[in-house]
Amino acid sequence: MSAPARHLSGADGLKRLSVATPDRPLRLDSGRMLDQVDIAYETSGELNSDKSNVVFLCHALTGDQFAASHNPVTGRPAWWDEVVGPGLPVDTNRFFVICSNVLGGCMGSTGPASRRQDGSYWGTDFPIITIADMVRAQIALLDQLGIPNLFLAIGGSIGGMQVLEWTIQAPNRVFAALPIATAARQSAQNIGFYEVGRQAIMADPNWKNGAYLAANARPDRGLAVARMAAHITYVSETALKHKFDRRLQDRATKTFGFDADFQIESYLRHQGQTFVDRFDANSYLYITRAMDYFDLAGEHGGVLANAFRGLQTRFCVVSFSSDWHYPPEESRNLVRALNAAGCETSYVSIETDKGHDAFLLEEPEYQAALRGFIDAAATARGLPDAVQ
Amino acid sequence: MSAPARHLSGADGLKRLSVATPDRPLRLDSGRMLDQVDIAYETSGELNSDKSNVVFLCHALTGDQFAASHNPVTGRPAWWDEVVGPGLPVDTNRFFVICSNVLGGCMGSTGPASRRQDGSYWGTDFPIITIADMVRAQIALLDQLGIPNLFLAIGGSIGGMQVLEWTIQAPNRVFAALPIATAARQSAQNIGFYEVGRQAIMADPNWKNGAYLAANARPDRGLAVARMAAHITYVSETALKHKFDRRLQDRATKTFGFDADFQIESYLRHQGQTFVDRFDANSYLYITRAMDYFDLAGEHGGVLANAFRGLQTRFCVVSFSSDWHYPPEESRNLVRALNAAGCETSYVSIETDKGHDAFLLEEPEYQAALRGFIDAAATARGLPDAVQ
Repeated sequence: MSAPARHLSGADGLKRLSVATPDRPLRLDSGRMLDQVDIAYETSGELNSDKSNVVFLCHALTGDQFAASHNPVTGRPAWWDEVVGPGLPVDTNRFFVICSNVLGGCMGSTGPASRRQDGSYWGTDFPIITIADMVRAQIALLDQLGIPNLFLAIGGSIGGMQVLEWTIQAPNRVFAALPIATAARQSAQNIGFYEVGRQAIMADPNWKNGAYLAANARPDRGLAVARMAAHITYVSETALKHKFDRRLQDRATKTFGFDADFQIESYLRHQGQTFVDRFDANSYLYITRAMDYFDLAGEHGGVLANAFRGLQTRFCVVSFSSDWHYPPEESRNLVRALNAAGCETSYVSIETDKGHDAFLLEEPEYQAALRGFIDAAATARGLPDAVQ
Repeated sequence: MSAPARHLSGADGLKRLSVATPDRPLRLDSGRMLDQVDIAYETSGELNSDKSNVVFLCHALTGDQFAASHNPVTGRPAWWDEVVGPGLPVDTNRFFVICSNVLGGCMGSTGPASRRQDGSYWGTDFPIITIADMVRAQIALLDQLGIPNLFLAIGGSIGGMQVLEWTIQAPNRVFAALPIATAARQSAQNIGFYEVGRQAIMADPNWKNGAYLAANARPDRGLAVARMAAHITYVSETALKHKFDRRLQDRATKTFGFDADFQIESYLRHQGQTFVDRFDANSYLYITRAMDYFDLAGEHGGVLANAFRGLQTRFCVVSFSSDWHYPPEESRNLVRALNAAGCETSYVSIETDKGHDAFLLEEPEYQAALRGFIDAAATARGLPDAVQ
């Protein structure tokens, strides 16, 4: 069992800004208030003189602010280094890129693993948050940074949900939006899969009703099972077949036991085991719950188009053919609503067998689509090829 | 935590036959021998004078021998009462129907929850078994019953795997075979889902390395999570949407908590909680492992058709359009191999949004297909309309 990660303590050198204080609390969708919220963030590239080249990256469930730079806490490489960097579609030679750890996260932003002012851990006393609450904190961060507008909001999966929420909460502040491999609502099947994960975490006796940090324990086994269950949904059946099929792991014949005989078992166990070293179980509960609650149509009288009426933002919606976690049909529903709302909208459907995780991977057609939309938007915004 | 179920003790009035003894042990695929195997079974209908009207039903992962009759142990109704009974496609007025609890199961057949001769529970000392081992025990049961041949072997899901195995192990003893919603091999994705379930069980401290019965404990929470994860795969995304969508459970608004706000959460929790009352966690490990190991092509030189060459059995393969656990493509692969092997084969693809579980449900087109194939086979076999 690992000790609580160093960065949870706050004394870790991570870059943070306070976006809520007792004088200026963050009001949550639940009605509760948070009067102490830090948001940890990273930037890449340079802000231009009129602050018109800002890209806000929204990370997915288990991501963090280190989209374009090596993560000093986990030692892991940047999670979006196929998309963000010099000369890449989100070109850090041209744009000033901000990525922040979501509210409720565990990479330096305030969440259930943070300490309250009295020094105790929040644990499950932390209020339930929504995608809209995450974006509220991001907008507050932008204000703290003295940046009026975004050139682009971009993100995949739950990051795409945040992108949609940005355009609604800050209707005059987002020039272009790129929601990728996402949906305007969480489906029953996805609620189900994440509920399995939550039950696995809560079934772990080390979870201790959410108060494990105070007990110096961690529900690693439950969290690993949760990650394994979710991970299957991130990959297509075809990709699993190509990558693993029924091949055995480091052995010539079946062992007739419960060891990881098959590569797919070994791979999933590895995914679970490495995840617990970098993620907090309560954060997993809170962020998946925020996903469950996401339903833009539900919040706009049952009509999704109502969420987007009057927006000047130009949208590009991207989906992947083999993504069964957020299937292309979800993106098409979104595109129909954006069109019905009269928004400038393009839609790119990428043919790939890589499933949901394709949004993180190098796919030439995907890269070309991102580049095409972003470059055209930058031209429309009057941005030069490099920071001036 | 519940006590070990009454029927695990053996003193329960369940109908059983001993199919392996120290003099006549059951040799398993693993090379190990079992010298004490009881198989619990049920029959419906009457055996005709020349014993030509025998139908063997093979149950799925969590099924049991009570396919056509009320289960006296759990109090549950028969699990296949849409298909088996008087006037139904498997007509108990016409056929003598046998259904046995699989080797490794927990409804009276020998498995990890059984006691050894010294009185101790097998637990995870029980040898790993395969689908072929289950069928070996079923054939031994048939021999014990003094029945030479089957008119029909029928079953869905892992029951369908057993049906295929019957035709191979007893090539001259199966007149007709009906494998439903199944596959000739377990896919990587399915291995993955069941590995998640196994890890959930093994992560439960009450599992106690498999020796929980001796400790009077039961890993109910882990088993419930395993069942929840598997259950999602048994239902189509469309069916979940129609049945639950994002509807809330017995409340008007979100609670902003981790209770089961959504009907889908409540439903899955209920599936998990009720399952643990009727199933043994180690049986779940063993039966899912048998499924992982199932690969008929792999056992026949990599060519599936080789498994079926020379068989006189007439086959009808049935799949369901929205089944993503054993997708129609798996059935079509099987049909191609049966045709390549020169077997008399028909294939029925049922359009339904009910997913994998459709094989258990009332679907008029499905019932008509079963009835058509079975009646035609009965005529070919020379069976009268009712037992004579």
